[in-house]
Amino acid sequence: MTTQALVDQILKKRSFLCVGLDVDVEKMPAQVREGNDPIFTFCKAIIDATAPYCVAYKPNIAFFEAYGLEGWKALERVIDYLNTHYPTLYTIADAKRGDIGNTATRYAKAFFDQLAFDALTVAPYMGRDSVEPFLAFEQHHTILLALTSNPGAADFQYIQQDGQPLYQKVIEQSQAWQGSDRLMYVVGATKADALVKIRQWVPDAFLLVPGVGAQGGSLDEVAHYGLNDRCGLLVNASRAIIYASDQEDFAQAAAQAAQELQKQMADWLVKKNLV
Amino acid sequence: MTTQALVDQILKKRSFLCVGLDVDVEKMPAQVREGNDPIFTFCKAIIDATAPYCVAYKPNIAFFEAYGLEGWKALERVIDYLNTHYPTLYTIADAKRGDIGNTATRYAKAFFDQLAFDALTVAPYMGRDSVEPFLAFEQHHTILLALTSNPGAADFQYIQQDGQPLYQKVIEQSQAWQGSDRLMYVVGATKADALVKIRQWVPDAFLLVPGVGAQGGSLDEVAHYGLNDRCGLLVNASRAIIYASDQEDFAQAAAQAAQELQKQMADWLVKKNLV
Repeated sequence: MTTQALVDQILKKRSFLCVGLDVDVEKMPAQVREGNDPIFTFCKAIIDATAPYCVAYKPNIAFFEAYGLEGWKALERVIDYLNTHYPTLYTIADAKRGDIGNTATRYAKAFFDQLAFDALTVAPYMGRDSVEPFLAFEQHHTILLALTSNPGAADFQYIQQDGQPLYQKVIEQSQAWQGSDRLMYVVGATKADALVKIRQWVPDAFLLVPGVGAQGGSLDEVAHYGLNDRCGLLVNASRAIIYASDQEDFAQAAAQAAQELQKQMADWLVKKNLV
Repeated sequence: MTTQALVDQILKKRSFLCVGLDVDVEKMPAQVREGNDPIFTFCKAIIDATAPYCVAYKPNIAFFEAYGLEGWKALERVIDYLNTHYPTLYTIADAKRGDIGNTATRYAKAFFDQLAFDALTVAPYMGRDSVEPFLAFEQHHTILLALTSNPGAADFQYIQQDGQPLYQKVIEQSQAWQGSDRLMYVVGATKADALVKIRQWVPDAFLLVPGVGAQGGSLDEVAHYGLNDRCGLLVNASRAIIYASDQEDFAQAAAQAAQELQKQMADWLVKKNLV
């Protein structure tokens, strides 16, 4: 999907919500957990219920891999279901891959060709030649980790050289890489103050912002500092939506949680004169 | 596997060779490529031929994922085959995972519980709480990226604060993390000069050294600067061994390439009075 097609969907649905699919069978309602194919059944129900309120889904690949072959099968079914039934929705494989060039190409093939995701999260530690193989795929986006939402982000991402922290160098240097118009960045919602600076460095880039909800980030702060003139944000919520209820009404509760976020997002899009 | 059990194998076999399984069906000999289950067939033949000369195998997970469900099935068969037929050999999933705590735990379960690898490569960008979930698994090792062998390593790994490059901070800080006695580090063979410093910072740690062979690293330099009093090295070669021939004699050629490296390693172990 092109960036413009994503922007069109955002403005049409008045939402920049991404629903994270962190599938955990233990947290699913009993009737799903005990049925056949619980992972796919759960995801399908969540998708059908929340699709009116979001523009993107982000399966968290670790949660699928943890179930081995069954998990991988379920992942294939989930992405096929999304691409078949909701082709205008944007899909992100949250896999945080990163390796030398010939290996990175394999990961790109796995997620862009085999599984047909629109986008993939990628880790920057190994530098330019570990990221450019992903950027070579047209119609796909590479979402580079910049400043993450977890406490450990402080360990290395703020290391400074010449007054610039590592996450700034990641953002600024990567803008010079081949295919950088297909780059987005992960910026944690718990780092709203950093959004001001990041918007100066990359005013036009899309940012994927996790950490709203269960991790404590504020949607208002993120929208206030992060929105640009074509929205430029995908705000992810996972647990706060998909586990809004662990009872039979889980899909309905997820829809309600998603709708509440969508309403706040619509208000922000109006406030910023985007719709 | 414990570190001591690994050391015992190294001294017994006079080898610190790790064979990297970067499976690429295109590079396999025709009779394998055109048969049933080419990935497993190829890996099994390579393992049976090279096992006398190495102490570890390192499937490169990207190469399996690129084949989708078939690749994941083949990976399960390869690790099962290794654990069943060669239980004293050490197994490393080269996956370079890294994510926030609850997600990292899922990756750990995927590779340590589901697939039963001895070790996993992990990326440090997200800091302490993204790595400690792996370190919580006893009898397993977490192999943290420190200084990689690719050109892009220069982009971020050498960024300096207070005279210390990022890869030094990764190594030194991680030594204070919970379970750090189960940490190893990836140090590219193309960075032999850095090995001198790394051995000062972590004299006792095991280092996984890729980049010998196809990537141009020198085994002699790595052994000279990297060996410690319990060996402390696993030197990986992938393409130089598994694609030594693309003809019917591929397994025999792989064995020969592995044996040549093993002989050089045995000489170094003797020279350093380790055997």
